[in-house]
Amino acid sequence: MSKFPDNIFDIVSEDLVAVEEELYSIIQSPVDMVNDIGVHLVQAGGKRIRPALYLLCARGGVPNQAELLPMAVAIELIHMATLVHDDIIDNAATRRGRPTANARWGNHSSVLTGDYLFAKAFSAIILARKNMLKILTDVICNICEGEIIQLKEAFNANQTEADYRLRVAQKTADFIAASCELGAIAGGLDEKSVIRVREYGYALGMAFQITDDILDITASAEQLGKPVGNDLRQGIVTLPVIYALKNSPRSDELRNIIINQKMSDDEVKRGLEIIHQTEAVEYSYGQVHTYLQHARNSLPATLNSSVRESLFAVADFVGLRKY
Amino acid sequence: MSKFPDNIFDIVSEDLVAVEEELYSIIQSPVDMVNDIGVHLVQAGGKRIRPALYLLCARGGVPNQAELLPMAVAIELIHMATLVHDDIIDNAATRRGRPTANARWGNHSSVLTGDYLFAKAFSAIILARKNMLKILTDVICNICEGEIIQLKEAFNANQTEADYRLRVAQKTADFIAASCELGAIAGGLDEKSVIRVREYGYALGMAFQITDDILDITASAEQLGKPVGNDLRQGIVTLPVIYALKNSPRSDELRNIIINQKMSDDEVKRGLEIIHQTEAVEYSYGQVHTYLQHARNSLPATLNSSVRESLFAVADFVGLRKY
Repeated sequence: MSKFPDNIFDIVSEDLVAVEEELYSIIQSPVDMVNDIGVHLVQAGGKRIRPALYLLCARGGVPNQAELLPMAVAIELIHMATLVHDDIIDNAATRRGRPTANARWGNHSSVLTGDYLFAKAFSAIILARKNMLKILTDVICNICEGEIIQLKEAFNANQTEADYRLRVAQKTADFIAASCELGAIAGGLDEKSVIRVREYGYALGMAFQITDDILDITASAEQLGKPVGNDLRQGIVTLPVIYALKNSPRSDELRNIIINQKMSDDEVKRGLEIIHQTEAVEYSYGQVHTYLQHARNSLPATLNSSVRESLFAVADFVGLRKY
Repeated sequence: MSKFPDNIFDIVSEDLVAVEEELYSIIQSPVDMVNDIGVHLVQAGGKRIRPALYLLCARGGVPNQAELLPMAVAIELIHMATLVHDDIIDNAATRRGRPTANARWGNHSSVLTGDYLFAKAFSAIILARKNMLKILTDVICNICEGEIIQLKEAFNANQTEADYRLRVAQKTADFIAASCELGAIAGGLDEKSVIRVREYGYALGMAFQITDDILDITASAEQLGKPVGNDLRQGIVTLPVIYALKNSPRSDELRNIIINQKMSDDEVKRGLEIIHQTEAVEYSYGQVHTYLQHARNSLPATLNSSVRESLFAVADFVGLRKY
């Protein structure tokens, strides 16, 4: 996955360095294996987009410096925990081009490491305000529900765009929305602005996930750091797939590929071909741009201008990224 | 697993009914499958020993009724979450004679359901005092570390009694200790009494786990609700096994069985035979009784007398239970 341009999070670059240090410090455990897995996960990096957005939104107002960082750390720890458990569920061998924790230490230790990270996350924010804690526990419930729906609906070719949007909202957009909302609360913005900042995060999150789903079909394995057509192989029915199922003259063939729980490499390839022969990618990018426009329009005027510009730039980047 | 005698938790029986109702209410989800798994888990029951001890210790003082129940519910939700993840790790098909969540809904949904329960637990206690939240997040970290050590040291025949005690402390006793400590805090006991109540819980938890480990060797499958010698088969080296390794004339044969990661049914049977030919069970029960005596001695005089009697009765029962 491509990194965000360095300058996009300039305003919070010092905060992000502090978050990184705190992540290393908080995952330390007297148990060697817990430590090793923790360091592996922090080193694996990632875009840190959730803490970055949280910090950026907080700097849109005037945050209390002492309570700012723990929540950023907790947000990333929760994200890391969900990734560790996701990789077990997807049986993924690599993420961002590196071996996953489950590939290296086994599923069992990885289940426990995810739980450990959840506990560390809540431990980090015991001093946080109660409304902020509630937002974060709701995020985890939503992600779990979204992922369970995704598991249940895998290899089901009868999903509508509305089904897809609901699932993406629960599994991805809600967390990005909450990161922005928590930042706005930490920054002391007024209630109306908090709602609008959340709306920005929600729309950005939808755009972000749809782009991910497009890239699963269009990018190369090298660019993705994981196999192409990974979602399709797992029977995850994404927006481009739904479009192709509705509009392709070879819809029946695609449908038969999707409902086959033991898809061969050739079938995945053929499925991708059928999708590419339609306007699925263009249509999906159209949705991305609609969401991003909504995100931009949602940003309240109360944010200080340099933060507003950065949040605009983030939206621009999500629309442009090619892998 | 045998139920505690009904009258033992008489003082908190109304509280426990309220906990049960709240458990059903809190696991409700708009996602059918999440709901079904949640109901299955609550119905599977269990002894509710952690919330019962918490409530009992709280009633040793004068708890604030409004803040009493949410923590009891959170304690049981966290316990349920660890059980769901444990059953995945142990690949268990049944627990308490009923199919496990992983057997019925698959490992993937079960990983997510465990996460969901953790989040619901923290959601229930957002209003709790910060020191209480910290105790609970530490419990989860300890359980995860203890379980990871257990995984790492499986099929290792060179473990000492000290290794065993450390592992049991982290994986079981700490949670029982914390349940009692949280109750004492909720009951408004003085600092010294809180420490002694925690000590009671810790020693009770050690006795409880050693008894479990003995029963894995002595009880019948019907009594256990799971296969006999289950720990041995998984390479988990418990106190009776450590004793037999040290004292049996057939120590080498037992050692070879333990380090064999693909133990046959006959080997498990032979391993149990070798253990039974030693004083391992008697020795382990000796340890149980030492811990229970320490538990009784730890109970502070500040507890009201009916609660003290109940906590004594709990210790007596743990020493007597045969399955």
